[in-house]
Amino acid sequence: MKILLDAMGGDNAPDATIKGAYKAVNQVKSEIVLIGKEEIIRSKFKEFYGKEPEEISNRLIIKNATETIEMEDIPTVAIKHKKDSSMVVGFKMLKEDEGDVFISAGNSGALLTGATLLVGRIKGIDRPALGGILPAYHSQLLLMDCGANTNCKPINLLQFALMSTIYLRNTFGIEKPTIGLLNIGTEETKGNDLTKESYLLLKEKSEELGINFVGNVEGRDAFSGEIDAIVTDGFTGNIFLKSVEGLGKFVKKSLTENLKKNLFTTICAAPSLPAIKGFAKSVDYKSYGGALFLGVKKPVVKAHGSSDEILFEFTIKQAEKFVENKAVPKMIEEFEKGNKEEK
Amino acid sequence: MKILLDAMGGDNAPDATIKGAYKAVNQVKSEIVLIGKEEIIRSKFKEFYGKEPEEISNRLIIKNATETIEMEDIPTVAIKHKKDSSMVVGFKMLKEDEGDVFISAGNSGALLTGATLLVGRIKGIDRPALGGILPAYHSQLLLMDCGANTNCKPINLLQFALMSTIYLRNTFGIEKPTIGLLNIGTEETKGNDLTKESYLLLKEKSEELGINFVGNVEGRDAFSGEIDAIVTDGFTGNIFLKSVEGLGKFVKKSLTENLKKNLFTTICAAPSLPAIKGFAKSVDYKSYGGALFLGVKKPVVKAHGSSDEILFEFTIKQAEKFVENKAVPKMIEEFEKGNKEEK
Repeated sequence: MKILLDAMGGDNAPDATIKGAYKAVNQVKSEIVLIGKEEIIRSKFKEFYGKEPEEISNRLIIKNATETIEMEDIPTVAIKHKKDSSMVVGFKMLKEDEGDVFISAGNSGALLTGATLLVGRIKGIDRPALGGILPAYHSQLLLMDCGANTNCKPINLLQFALMSTIYLRNTFGIEKPTIGLLNIGTEETKGNDLTKESYLLLKEKSEELGINFVGNVEGRDAFSGEIDAIVTDGFTGNIFLKSVEGLGKFVKKSLTENLKKNLFTTICAAPSLPAIKGFAKSVDYKSYGGALFLGVKKPVVKAHGSSDEILFEFTIKQAEKFVENKAVPKMIEEFEKGNKEEK
Repeated sequence: MKILLDAMGGDNAPDATIKGAYKAVNQVKSEIVLIGKEEIIRSKFKEFYGKEPEEISNRLIIKNATETIEMEDIPTVAIKHKKDSSMVVGFKMLKEDEGDVFISAGNSGALLTGATLLVGRIKGIDRPALGGILPAYHSQLLLMDCGANTNCKPINLLQFALMSTIYLRNTFGIEKPTIGLLNIGTEETKGNDLTKESYLLLKEKSEELGINFVGNVEGRDAFSGEIDAIVTDGFTGNIFLKSVEGLGKFVKKSLTENLKKNLFTTICAAPSLPAIKGFAKSVDYKSYGGALFLGVKKPVVKAHGSSDEILFEFTIKQAEKFVENKAVPKMIEEFEKGNKEEK
């Protein structure tokens, strides 16, 4: 198995991608292909570990790519013209079966454009979407779409619901995952035009498509553990994602500070630190890794733009599991079945 | 001073409103007018305290209103036809200066419709909005709009920014409050049509209106303490509000559970409980009370629909402060000045 990693993508690349790959390589079975400027990558390996990557592991491979897509590049232009960029090279390898999954923390727009144009959509899906896994009470929550599609139509949300169902069933073994529509009230008449129309469409089509649609869900109930996935347009989903991320950051900072207020509280807190750390980890959104770009023909993982080495390490391990549990081939299979039945 | 309280509004009314008023009355200087079905209110006072309200305090007053607006009532219809409802009676008293502030946890749509129709908008404001105060790092964050206007235009968001500025200056003493536009990226080109257009309008008009506009703000940075207010349409704002509320609930539940995992951790946790409780309070959105409906001519406070007696107690005290610091008269004054200057 081969994991393709955009070594140049993200705020902390290539240092964080290299260090993440170094840490992950002995925890995965796959080869890790670092795609980017070979000279830079080699000199960084020398700097950090005093060795060439091949001397560290025969599963650490470099694929040279002379260009880099920058954060400020216009996605479509960059994908079209920067043909030897780490991202375009990665997508081409993925398409041509020279790798099993592609991870990048680079320019999100370019990543989504590239995945759609160079790898291609699954037949029956109009808009692929970013599925992020968030922690929830004794459970997890899939958020579809985390931010790929700023503007959506009801049909897109219906497809997000179907993709979520298939993904959760095959990957988490949840037989009938509960799917909610993210909204500002639970009543059918609540929300904006998109949520109102999407509600009606989901209600009408869910049974025949095998979606366990449970109606509107408000953010305040999203983490209860009773909802397996919430579907929403990418703008709203991204607002949701980043607001919980922001609160999570604030919570960790305040908690640490409250416990360190004075020497007395610090000492008193010591025995309960393991419990608090366990908790802090459970609300640290960073430890939940990358979002999966569901709806394209091959596995693509969008890592957090500000990923550090620990997050890259985690995301690489997560990507291997994503390939192992065959989430994408199963998605294709189920949609093909659906497409045939339609005819 | 007189605080008007819709005794029949909210999921836990009238028990919670009555108990909240009872708890608050000795902590405020104002009279508290409980508006609702007199017979029920009196019998509840007898049941809870064995006394008539007048025997408890001469500042506990009942105003009889024979009807109640229910959660499932259509707002405009209810406001028009239920003329003797606790809500409509409250608004009429507020308008006719028989009270200084009106608090209700009832049907949100009816509250907003009633405030706009019966109390009236401040000249120069097209859409009043719900301003909620959230906790932030060593600070607080004003969220405008929390959910009053599902659909907004850029001009509305500009007015929200201006109202936020005036409110924060006069109430929190922040000379030049920093105002951000809630968005999914910090770059000018990010977001949906509304945020893109609003960004340009805010950029163009802020200086002349005295708004300290700091650009797009993502949810992940909203709680840093560096932003005093974020403006957004009511749909997005409500998603934001409820998602942080949901995470807050999850955080409290998980933290408590982690600390109680076994007898050992429970005992160990004991000394640090005050610190943890201090922290838990700081992320408990309920202790931040009601949202202010800014842009109408008199003070209107929308209490949380699921408010309990403690939250009503808090909201009553908060409402008194809101009147004392003259937030609304100052808002009117500044907008009148602006209107004159325009001519």
